[in-house]
Amino acid sequence: MSNPRIRLDVDARRAQLLEHALTLFSAKTFDEVSVADVARAAGVSQGLLYHYFPGKRALFLAALESAADRLVSEAIVTSELPAHAGAAERYASLRAGLDHYLRWVEQRAVAYRFLLRGGFGSDPDVAAVVSRTRDAFVDRIREGLGAGPDDPTARCLGIGWAAMVEVVSLEWLETADLTRCEVVEVLSQAAARLFAPLVMKG
Amino acid sequence: MSNPRIRLDVDARRAQLLEHALTLFSAKTFDEVSVADVARAAGVSQGLLYHYFPGKRALFLAALESAADRLVSEAIVTSELPAHAGAAERYASLRAGLDHYLRWVEQRAVAYRFLLRGGFGSDPDVAAVVSRTRDAFVDRIREGLGAGPDDPTARCLGIGWAAMVEVVSLEWLETADLTRCEVVEVLSQAAARLFAPLVMKG
Repeated sequence: MSNPRIRLDVDARRAQLLEHALTLFSAKTFDEVSVADVARAAGVSQGLLYHYFPGKRALFLAALESAADRLVSEAIVTSELPAHAGAAERYASLRAGLDHYLRWVEQRAVAYRFLLRGGFGSDPDVAAVVSRTRDAFVDRIREGLGAGPDDPTARCLGIGWAAMVEVVSLEWLETADLTRCEVVEVLSQAAARLFAPLVMKG
Repeated sequence: MSNPRIRLDVDARRAQLLEHALTLFSAKTFDEVSVADVARAAGVSQGLLYHYFPGKRALFLAALESAADRLVSEAIVTSELPAHAGAAERYASLRAGLDHYLRWVEQRAVAYRFLLRGGFGSDPDVAAVVSRTRDAFVDRIREGLGAGPDDPTARCLGIGWAAMVEVVSLEWLETADLTRCEVVEVLSQAAARLFAPLVMKG
């Protein structure tokens, strides 16, 4: 235990523990990471860690939720557009939003990978976090595009496109075949083509 | 141990063990399922199960791979189209292929959910199985559509669309908001719109 145990207030300490949990769970499987590993990385006692999180599963879920919250609050932005904004204005706003999203993904690559690949088993709580994040994403995009009615078909396209953004972003992180600008281009054009019929109907 | 222990040949026994593993891992988290649970469900001794699979992780991965193999070989079909097939013919073939895919998903809902939600931790082997399955899917679809060059942009769109099909299929299994025909319609139109520029360029 050579790390200095700095006294942090409760929220900051919790955030610090989650950051270490996230880094470890991202690099290894759920099975391979122990509560002791996280405590060691954070330079705290296991007792202190258990004071914040009752067990490994709770720690994992909290780390996942914190990554999801930050994605929703920091990465998914839409500029306020007037109700009468035209197609070109909406398209420019979509591109700017995607560019912001991908910059966030680039900066927080570890958290992003963890959120989208970090499920363990068919855990309903994990699935709920991912699905909640995707819903928030779809809502903002539909708002931004001024896309039409919220019927099952529109919803279906929305979550489909959100899944496309997630997988393409992950792939981009890993292979770097395309530049960020090129990915923004592909995804904006995809959205424009997919949602065009809805926008026109709406 | 009341289940009769029927003598099965090696392949059939292995398939039977995988089927039970798949059912259990689909319903619970990786942590909650033990090798003993799978042995009990299959009506065999733990010793016999260890004879086929060295441990829980190996059993889990083998079940995942078997679900992936069946998805690729059974669900993803493309009819042989002549090289000069027109757009309408290709579109009809795409719709038929998606209809077949969704029928398979419906019949093998447990395996499908397991394959796409069953990851545990950030396991590279699990990610590899899912990614291999998606690549096979993209290859067949691009073939079927006669889509143009295999450049990074085309690949990006391809995996994006595959992810859309996966997520929309999962959502359809869970919510049943749309009929199978409606989902086929949404996904075929999405593919036609997304790939149109490539098909024209190709």
